[in-house]
Amino acid sequence: MVKTIEWKDNTVRMLDQTLLPNKVVYKTYRDYKAVADAITRLVVRGAPAIGVAAAMGVALGALKIKAKDIPTFKKELTKVTQKLAASRPTAVNLFWAIERMERFVEESTTTNVEVLKKKLIAEAKRVLREDIAINKLIGKNGGELIKNNWTILTHCNAGSLATGGYGTALGVIRGAKAAGKKIKVFADETRPVLQGSRLTAWELMEDKIDVTLITDNMAGALMHQGLIDCVVVGADRIASNGDVANKIGTYSVAVLARAHGIPFYVAAPLSTIDTNIKTGEEIPIEERSSTEVTHVQGKRIAPLKCKVRNPAFDVTPAWLVNGIVTEKGVVKAPYKSGIKKLFKK
Amino acid sequence: MVKTIEWKDNTVRMLDQTLLPNKVVYKTYRDYKAVADAITRLVVRGAPAIGVAAAMGVALGALKIKAKDIPTFKKELTKVTQKLAASRPTAVNLFWAIERMERFVEESTTTNVEVLKKKLIAEAKRVLREDIAINKLIGKNGGELIKNNWTILTHCNAGSLATGGYGTALGVIRGAKAAGKKIKVFADETRPVLQGSRLTAWELMEDKIDVTLITDNMAGALMHQGLIDCVVVGADRIASNGDVANKIGTYSVAVLARAHGIPFYVAAPLSTIDTNIKTGEEIPIEERSSTEVTHVQGKRIAPLKCKVRNPAFDVTPAWLVNGIVTEKGVVKAPYKSGIKKLFKK
Repeated sequence: MVKTIEWKDNTVRMLDQTLLPNKVVYKTYRDYKAVADAITRLVVRGAPAIGVAAAMGVALGALKIKAKDIPTFKKELTKVTQKLAASRPTAVNLFWAIERMERFVEESTTTNVEVLKKKLIAEAKRVLREDIAINKLIGKNGGELIKNNWTILTHCNAGSLATGGYGTALGVIRGAKAAGKKIKVFADETRPVLQGSRLTAWELMEDKIDVTLITDNMAGALMHQGLIDCVVVGADRIASNGDVANKIGTYSVAVLARAHGIPFYVAAPLSTIDTNIKTGEEIPIEERSSTEVTHVQGKRIAPLKCKVRNPAFDVTPAWLVNGIVTEKGVVKAPYKSGIKKLFKK
Repeated sequence: MVKTIEWKDNTVRMLDQTLLPNKVVYKTYRDYKAVADAITRLVVRGAPAIGVAAAMGVALGALKIKAKDIPTFKKELTKVTQKLAASRPTAVNLFWAIERMERFVEESTTTNVEVLKKKLIAEAKRVLREDIAINKLIGKNGGELIKNNWTILTHCNAGSLATGGYGTALGVIRGAKAAGKKIKVFADETRPVLQGSRLTAWELMEDKIDVTLITDNMAGALMHQGLIDCVVVGADRIASNGDVANKIGTYSVAVLARAHGIPFYVAAPLSTIDTNIKTGEEIPIEERSSTEVTHVQGKRIAPLKCKVRNPAFDVTPAWLVNGIVTEKGVVKAPYKSGIKKLFKK
């Protein structure tokens, strides 16, 4: 399985996903600001992977703090967390991971800054380890929803590359395969950033899972022809009522799936559920640079000065979702109570 | 208004649409085989424009025939029409134009081959002139469906570039504007060949019509936000029951429009209606090269050896269509009788 991100010799090592599938290049980050920039530029992307990167970014920032006492250290660390928190607005795992690291500092009883730094590094590594374990549980729980010989449509990349490893939506696909089921996958290419063609097709091919690439606008026609049995996608943020923010185009896929009577599942860890918000309307949607739409790999494909919209995400209302697959099981409607139950100890 | 195709000094002159919007290059064709190749390679595309190109291709082929008597000339012309008919399978205007030219030859009473050649050239030029006039009627008829201050979504390019001039779907938009209505347009970029970004955005900007480019997967989210009032698209072939074959992704747009209560109109000349077929199931759908999906302007965006589907068209069932705008007026359901009426003299 491809390694998306790791902590190595007091640096963060990440696969540069902007260069896939043409080049497999790992980059080494020694500075939290560079990690924040890497998140913004999509070197690392996918809600859970962003969470891991943010946790490791906090640890990296902590390492460089020169303060000798804990109160000054904490103050310095605020700069680090603020910079990382400003890298992207939609995926809640970013804020979840930063808050987890901040809470860790708050709850720590050590008076030795160097000890605290070591503990923060261990905590960041724990975020990664836990994420992989959670994904495997999601895969196991979601795999049970997939029937033998099904063809599954996925959108964007919610795979190893979007997480610490194994994946959420692709974790479900891997879980179904691990349970001995024969499955096929259609991958939406997912314009504008092409995570489907560049990342999902690539990682499924690496894993020898049968994948066929399509453009986003083909999914409806294939559903109409009866070629798709089920949809599984990831999520960037899920509201308390089950509304799901995910990569732009997810909403269209959900409407099309419902129109064809095809189940539409969302796979995500609890860290993607934002219990602070009631509905999807409260989720901030990032609008990214127009050049993502007007250019592909540096080649211009639209007229100069063309007006563009480029929302990176959309919100799928809970009523279009047939189930949310988490590490604690599959939640079905009514989502409000189901989600509340997930967070009970 | 941009000139898509013209007959000039015994050659066919066409704007090379594969190079837009980066380069505006006109190419001169002296050989019908090169015209057939240009149709296959999408130098010229869009059902009505393909029809004009085919008619001119027949005239070009006729010019080069060395036969001195009409029966031999007719036999030679069969090679020309067969070659042109094999250039693309879905748009029926291709076959309509070829049959029109063949019928013209059949009905001609001249015994002089050189006279017949001149008449065929005149007939090909008439196909172009008529197409522009028909588009203007479509624009006038369809423009009445568009309300002031509406925002219209269109898919692919059914504009000047897809026709002899003025356009079908974009003809409706031009017709609404000509009638004094304030309108805005969202253009789906239309992967894989990007006719929306490369052609529709370009020709609407040339005409100073307010256009915003989006990726195909954004349309649903914009509909959900109430930002789209109506959809207008062209067609490559319409069956007797009103089923519409058009650029891949049209079906998804139609399903999404219906789910949001947004009217979905198809604009096309009678020459796009194939009364020989009962339903859309009989329409052959062209599957094009996988490199259209795996590459954009020569840049690879997918893994090597990635499996791909690339149907160039899909079929929207008549029940999702709110009206078919023709030069003879707007047909609404029930389509079978409405379409039959169109063809009554």
